[in-house]
Amino acid sequence: MIKVSVMYPNRPGVQFDHDYYRDKHLPLIKSRMGAALKYYTIDKGLAGGAPDAPAAYVAACHLLCDSVEAYQSSFGPHAQEISGDIRNFTNVTPVVQISEVVVENSAQG
Amino acid sequence: MIKVSVMYPNRPGVQFDHDYYRDKHLPLIKSRMGAALKYYTIDKGLAGGAPDAPAAYVAACHLLCDSVEAYQSSFGPHAQEISGDIRNFTNVTPVVQISEVVVENSAQG
Repeated sequence: MIKVSVMYPNRPGVQFDHDYYRDKHLPLIKSRMGAALKYYTIDKGLAGGAPDAPAAYVAACHLLCDSVEAYQSSFGPHAQEISGDIRNFTNVTPVVQISEVVVENSAQG
Repeated sequence: MIKVSVMYPNRPGVQFDHDYYRDKHLPLIKSRMGAALKYYTIDKGLAGGAPDAPAAYVAACHLLCDSVEAYQSSFGPHAQEISGDIRNFTNVTPVVQISEVVVENSAQG
């Protein structure tokens, strides 16, 4: 399984509509990717690791798919539409990373 | 629920022992945090979002807890021991972020 992490840097002046992100943007991604998207998670940045440090990312989502190919073939045809929606909830450009899921959930063995 | 993300930058010259991370470091964290750690996930960086772009992070883990207080009270007393183990698997310092979990798993309602 692979995870596509989309992370929005928490730079000065950042604007981010967390409600739109949860209620509109991720459902848009889900509707376009279909069954290739096994599930997603959404994070809202609270704090950094050191006392009083800001979070590195104001928000993030993680898209779980069976393979890189499953992600690319389902997301790719809709990439322009999905990327075009970003301006509706933030003024920052996300950092995107594809990872291998080494442990999906330690409580599930 | 909150998520503590520990992300290891993929800088030039980075060394990372993914086996040690999975087999020793995360089990150490789990054993020290006890029941306060609901579960964890481990990622291994594969690629960035753009073609041929490297992953921003060589590896990451995400620790799921009921609250920031549950994390701090269970991790804090062992922070020095856990941080001291980092040199056993990598030569980079992680970025740490605490997030609110807005959606834990979209497939579970």
